[in-house]
Amino acid sequence: MKKAVVLLSGGLDSATTLYVAQHRGFECVCLIFDYGQRHRKEIENARTIAHKAHCAWQIVKISLPWKGSSLLDRKMSVHSTPTVHSIPLTYVPARNIIFLSFALSCAEAIGASGIFIGANAIDYSGYPDCRPEFYQAFVKAAGLGTKTGAQGRPIKIITPLIAKTKAEIIKLGMKLGVPYALTWSCYKGAKAPCGVCDSCKFREKGFREAGVRDPLIRKLGFEYVWKD
Amino acid sequence: MKKAVVLLSGGLDSATTLYVAQHRGFECVCLIFDYGQRHRKEIENARTIAHKAHCAWQIVKISLPWKGSSLLDRKMSVHSTPTVHSIPLTYVPARNIIFLSFALSCAEAIGASGIFIGANAIDYSGYPDCRPEFYQAFVKAAGLGTKTGAQGRPIKIITPLIAKTKAEIIKLGMKLGVPYALTWSCYKGAKAPCGVCDSCKFREKGFREAGVRDPLIRKLGFEYVWKD
Repeated sequence: MKKAVVLLSGGLDSATTLYVAQHRGFECVCLIFDYGQRHRKEIENARTIAHKAHCAWQIVKISLPWKGSSLLDRKMSVHSTPTVHSIPLTYVPARNIIFLSFALSCAEAIGASGIFIGANAIDYSGYPDCRPEFYQAFVKAAGLGTKTGAQGRPIKIITPLIAKTKAEIIKLGMKLGVPYALTWSCYKGAKAPCGVCDSCKFREKGFREAGVRDPLIRKLGFEYVWKD
Repeated sequence: MKKAVVLLSGGLDSATTLYVAQHRGFECVCLIFDYGQRHRKEIENARTIAHKAHCAWQIVKISLPWKGSSLLDRKMSVHSTPTVHSIPLTYVPARNIIFLSFALSCAEAIGASGIFIGANAIDYSGYPDCRPEFYQAFVKAAGLGTKTGAQGRPIKIITPLIAKTKAEIIKLGMKLGVPYALTWSCYKGAKAPCGVCDSCKFREKGFREAGVRDPLIRKLGFEYVWKD
């Protein structure tokens, strides 16, 4: 059975990506990153999702002591504020590059042929490491800098959601049986989603446009108060 | 003063690279990786070298539980053995990609304009992540996947030793006052260098061809028994 490494954050996109990978016939190993994010509760969600999907998972603990992001620094706000070139304060320097490099290492070591990542460049916060051109360039670098690449078997990086709207992702996930009630999106990581951060907004918009009631909200027994 | 992140392993090449960066007028922050390498003693050497060079340093502890390298797995041999496409067993999957991605993150967070890495594609073990074409491709990916890149200030990756022989590196380092007695190369990480692993061989060859007696060997009070 062909193997893949799946980057699993506990959010809606990565959970859908895991189910897409399984649907395409891959035996998946999920990497879950504990990088000091303030919404650490997503780690527990990720673990539960991997368990539910009958997948192996590995928590990778990394330290980014230089911070530089409101997701790592509790003194900064996670709310959208106008920033230079529209990159929000929640941007974590080189986060997806770090995640992908660990995934590459894992994929080479376990003999996986692909890495699945739920990056999305439509309903997203404008992070540069979510754009398709970044992934194309990273695949090239990875092919040149790894043993598998040098041996003519480069590891693929698969971004099945990159060109989908959040509503399209949710519709796809509903078909595949993704347990959205187990996913977590809010950057704040409190007991209930804040409904105000970028991540909550995209989630709410996605379910609304897909015409589906968010199973997480149903489970928690309340509705977002939508603030625009 | 312009800032740079320097990847410092405690070996001969990275120590020379640090001194080159300082000579070029950079204020340097050294990243030292603790990744479960069997020659962990190099970490202490790296710290001593950074201290000697009056540099800030940060130890980055990472875990690669999937192993896949004789540098991580003590049951495997670190000695050169013929392997597929000449990539030795000491190759650590995607190691330099991981190191560079942390360096990128740090550089963005502290406002550094460059990353120095002592990769060398002449007297080296044939690791794919030491080749110039890999660095060119990685710079491109990094430019596309980071905030600084998206804002038109991509972080440079500087490989000052990439095309030098080990003897040339040593001659340059001697001029710059690199404290080679404080560096450590042997993969085995015992009290004294084994003199047999690839890393010892390249070091011995370098000092011999440079016509310099290795200050580490002088300090330890003995000579390699050169085995070819």
